[in-house]
Amino acid sequence: MSVAYRPSHADATYDMKYGVRSVQGGGRSSARETIGRVAPGAVAKKILKQFAGTEILAYVSQAHNVVLPEDVVDHEMLTLDQVESNIVRCPDPEYAEKMIAAIDAVRVRGDSVGGVVTCIVRNCPRGLGSPVFDKLEAELAKAMMSLPATKGFEVGSGFAGTFLTGSEHNDEFYTDEFGNIRTRTNRSGGIQGGISNGEIINMRIAFKPTSTIGRKQNTVTREKKETELIARGRHDPCVVPRAVPMVEAMVALVLMDQLMAQHAQCHLFPINPDLQGTMKLPELEPAPANFQM
Amino acid sequence: MSVAYRPSHADATYDMKYGVRSVQGGGRSSARETIGRVAPGAVAKKILKQFAGTEILAYVSQAHNVVLPEDVVDHEMLTLDQVESNIVRCPDPEYAEKMIAAIDAVRVRGDSVGGVVTCIVRNCPRGLGSPVFDKLEAELAKAMMSLPATKGFEVGSGFAGTFLTGSEHNDEFYTDEFGNIRTRTNRSGGIQGGISNGEIINMRIAFKPTSTIGRKQNTVTREKKETELIARGRHDPCVVPRAVPMVEAMVALVLMDQLMAQHAQCHLFPINPDLQGTMKLPELEPAPANFQM
Amino acid sequence: MSVAYRPSHADATYDMKYGVRSVQGGGRSSARETIGRVAPGAVAKKILKQFAGTEILAYVSQAHNVVLPEDVVDHEMLTLDQVESNIVRCPDPEYAEKMIAAIDAVRVRGDSVGGVVTCIVRNCPRGLGSPVFDKLEAELAKAMMSLPATKGFEVGSGFAGTFLTGSEHNDEFYTDEFGNIRTRTNRSGGIQGGISNGEIINMRIAFKPTSTIGRKQNTVTREKKETELIARGRHDPCVVPRAVPMVEAMVALVLMDQLMAQHAQCHLFPINPDLQGTMKLPELEPAPANFQM
Amino acid sequence: MSVAYRPSHADATYDMKYGVRSVQGGGRSSARETIGRVAPGAVAKKILKQFAGTEILAYVSQAHNVVLPEDVVDHEMLTLDQVESNIVRCPDPEYAEKMIAAIDAVRVRGDSVGGVVTCIVRNCPRGLGSPVFDKLEAELAKAMMSLPATKGFEVGSGFAGTFLTGSEHNDEFYTDEFGNIRTRTNRSGGIQGGISNGEIINMRIAFKPTSTIGRKQNTVTREKKETELIARGRHDPCVVPRAVPMVEAMVALVLMDQLMAQHAQCHLFPINPDLQGTMKLPELEPAPANFQM
Repeated sequence: MSVAYRPSHADATYDMKYGVRSVQGGGRSSARETIGRVAPGAVAKKILKQFAGTEILAYVSQAHNVVLPEDVVDHEMLTLDQVESNIVRCPDPEYAEKMIAAIDAVRVRGDSVGGVVTCIVRNCPRGLGSPVFDKLEAELAKAMMSLPATKGFEVGSGFAGTFLTGSEHNDEFYTDEFGNIRTRTNRSGGIQGGISNGEIINMRIAFKPTSTIGRKQNTVTREKKETELIARGRHDPCVVPRAVPMVEAMVALVLMDQLMAQHAQCHLFPINPDLQGTMKLPELEPAPANFQM
Repeated sequence: MSVAYRPSHADATYDMKYGVRSVQGGGRSSARETIGRVAPGAVAKKILKQFAGTEILAYVSQAHNVVLPEDVVDHEMLTLDQVESNIVRCPDPEYAEKMIAAIDAVRVRGDSVGGVVTCIVRNCPRGLGSPVFDKLEAELAKAMMSLPATKGFEVGSGFAGTFLTGSEHNDEFYTDEFGNIRTRTNRSGGIQGGISNGEIINMRIAFKPTSTIGRKQNTVTREKKETELIARGRHDPCVVPRAVPMVEAMVALVLMDQLMAQHAQCHLFPINPDLQGTMKLPELEPAPANFQM
Repeated sequence: MSVAYRPSHADATYDMKYGVRSVQGGGRSSARETIGRVAPGAVAKKILKQFAGTEILAYVSQAHNVVLPEDVVDHEMLTLDQVESNIVRCPDPEYAEKMIAAIDAVRVRGDSVGGVVTCIVRNCPRGLGSPVFDKLEAELAKAMMSLPATKGFEVGSGFAGTFLTGSEHNDEFYTDEFGNIRTRTNRSGGIQGGISNGEIINMRIAFKPTSTIGRKQNTVTREKKETELIARGRHDPCVVPRAVPMVEAMVALVLMDQLMAQHAQCHLFPINPDLQGTMKLPELEPAPANFQM
Repeated sequence: MSVAYRPSHADATYDMKYGVRSVQGGGRSSARETIGRVAPGAVAKKILKQFAGTEILAYVSQAHNVVLPEDVVDHEMLTLDQVESNIVRCPDPEYAEKMIAAIDAVRVRGDSVGGVVTCIVRNCPRGLGSPVFDKLEAELAKAMMSLPATKGFEVGSGFAGTFLTGSEHNDEFYTDEFGNIRTRTNRSGGIQGGISNGEIINMRIAFKPTSTIGRKQNTVTREKKETELIARGRHDPCVVPRAVPMVEAMVALVLMDQLMAQHAQCHLFPINPDLQGTMKLPELEPAPANFQM
């Protein structure tokens, strides 16, 4: 690995771009950089929760060919404990075991697998996002596709929704008992026209199989000489469970930014408060004496 | 439509955010805003072509349930004429007819359908993009998901790649007859670790069915009163063919930005020119006297 | 003027940079572009006034060699009417006449003069700005130096303050009758360490004499041929009075941005509300039915 | 200092904004943060020098009431050795001694003084900057006013230029022996209409006297109680000599950004190469094996 490029790994393109290379563990291209996302994401999650009751939960919904059926998880009731109850971070115990078995099966062969992370946001304030370039789904897509190993992003009905007609796909509006405008279905995934509508946001993110594997592959050296490579060292056979907190963190950072923007743009000087609502400021308790943001 | 919100349209969330509403045609949320993307995109395409021989081509690969098989289109040979040879912008005449028929079938019922646009980039220079937050796939994802009606984005193997193992998915490197490092397969979709590798970039973008339909739907007014709506006026039963130039334009704008950044960051003062390559400056002809960029 | 560059005008450098030239009135380099600053500045001024009682007032404090003494204008009491009471926008009638005479004296000779605009901000909320790169004085300096014809910027004691010692210059703190921390003097100009302290912000901006003059000057053509130029057409002999609303507008836009940022960053989740204060939200009246921002 | 705010120091406003305070040395408001400017500035200076022969030199032109006359320093011939030949970084030995004496005189009284840094740029490529908001002088002004303790910024003729008429101030053009368009005088300070014209850029930056002094001052505590303060510890009686490398670093960072932008925007696809010139790419030597940018 110190002389040859790993197939489908970032080390080759990084070297082609910058002309420098870190042979130990990928350097700046290592997924270790995501610590710088998860740490501030934890702060953002706390603020979102305290400020608007917003909850962000991600879980593994597919590992290799084990696919968790959509109706198994109730997004209204899902808890962090359910997600954290097993090492693959799949909230259904039965499917979690199947996923563990699938990963083990490739691990012993020195191979790897990919999968899908589903992420939901409950109690996201209405009005976050923008109508044109900086649509909320666009910001979320960028954030998700900036995570290592991602190959796809869907929101709401996603690719499956392309097989529906408009009359099947549209989310009809109604007024609920509290006088809020709601939708009966949620194929929009909580976002319409780039702006959150208050329903549950849901996303799916595709992670490719880990590129570093313990099987022999053809490759080239920096000097363009063809060679063979068998990677050594500790490499995850499946990064998808580890991606769960990364996904949550990036979603939290996007929403925190949007919450701040929304507050500044639309709540300082609202045009139509009845319609726009107000972001109720919580009764502020003094922060603990040792609190530092 | 002047009193009721259209289900799954941007008009409700726009009003909830800003407290203002354009009842004629969606206002700032109308897809008409994409003219401001397509026009500069045309300039970017010319520069990319002249500067680096880069070609961007998009086409409709799915309309409702008519799915163009992957092996029907040869991405090395695809031409703009093929795409523009029919009104659905599908380069295969047989599937184009099927798509037209599928769209017509829903149109007569006042309904709508969605679909998928595939976009490829040939001769994209190596080295475009960044290793961490601003990965090339992240920038492309944001650009695509900022287009109206998009619900999903894939690059390379996408969601399908999650079913492969690492040994099946990895793109092995070799050195070609010109001394260039290439990959034998292209499941990476031309991007590895956020940076282009010189292979064909390919993406797929999901467009939901048009929300404005001529069928009766339940909805609410701005005053939260429940009502029924049948949309009138000229509305596309399928926006996907119209999305083709939008997709190309946004891809061109992203790549143009990246080309400029790459030139400034890595080619003004290269560390290892052999490896990083140089972007050959073309023999410049004076621009025509009336040329204005 | 259609073949020769105007000495000290933007038309030469614009052409050297872009290779295109607008011979009629300076094109994109014309001060006419400031309409795009003054219009949104008027909106920002209204919001600042309504939200925080913030008032921004600029006036001409020097025209050529007529210098308004500092103690003539009381910044606590200055009004817009005083500024607008004469065509040079100098709030002191006596000095206004001297300025008008000074400008007339050069105008008849086909020459031009420069001067200084002073701008104050009353009731600027405390806490606007940032401690490092984006200091409030840095943002204001950029905004002011982005106006056409500016050559210098000062805040508070400015260049004159460099002749004082620390003990002469420092603004001592005290606690006023309302329990607010205030300063007895204001050499800081309302900003300390990049952040507003609630005292009056004051700035001075130097405007050079108009470059386009009706006197013969040596210059060159685009083809580098030496020639002579006498400018024709209507050109201001002194732009300084016209710069007054531009200055106010740019200050308003900077403060509006900072107010929004402050609200989002520090007031959504304050750590120490007693100290940080709160930006009291005004009792909101519904905006007029036809109000659009 | 652990309980009382220092008059005119950043510690009070920082606390008012964020509700947190660093009593040891100013925390994030300490001028120590400028290490993060000087380090990358050194890299930028090397690149500018290698790429375009650009040289940036700053020096102390005033300390308290010792003012270096303008004609003492020849900006064409000034060297780093001259600046670094004494501890106040004034290139004239006689005035350097006067400045040292002036600083010593206040130091022994526990007081402090301010002063002015002059900065010049030789061989700045033509065409750097922008015509409207991001004028080169605006970027430089922001960079300079983001340094601690700055109160004023001038470019070219600055505030003094406001006393000239247009015919006195304008820089007439001529064509030099190499066919370059040049100006006979340089009151523009190397920048016209926001864009560099290839002449020497010159700026002056005002630094107020250090706020932390060893003399008794009235002030308040965080709890708003009035008190007296005599600062202890090592504090510079005059920061101006130390500001010299900060100024150079920030100018280098601004110009490096502008050089990259200019290269990407105007040299990849020039419209009129004869006029716009080309930034000749130097014969590239391979970087040393251990070079890392």
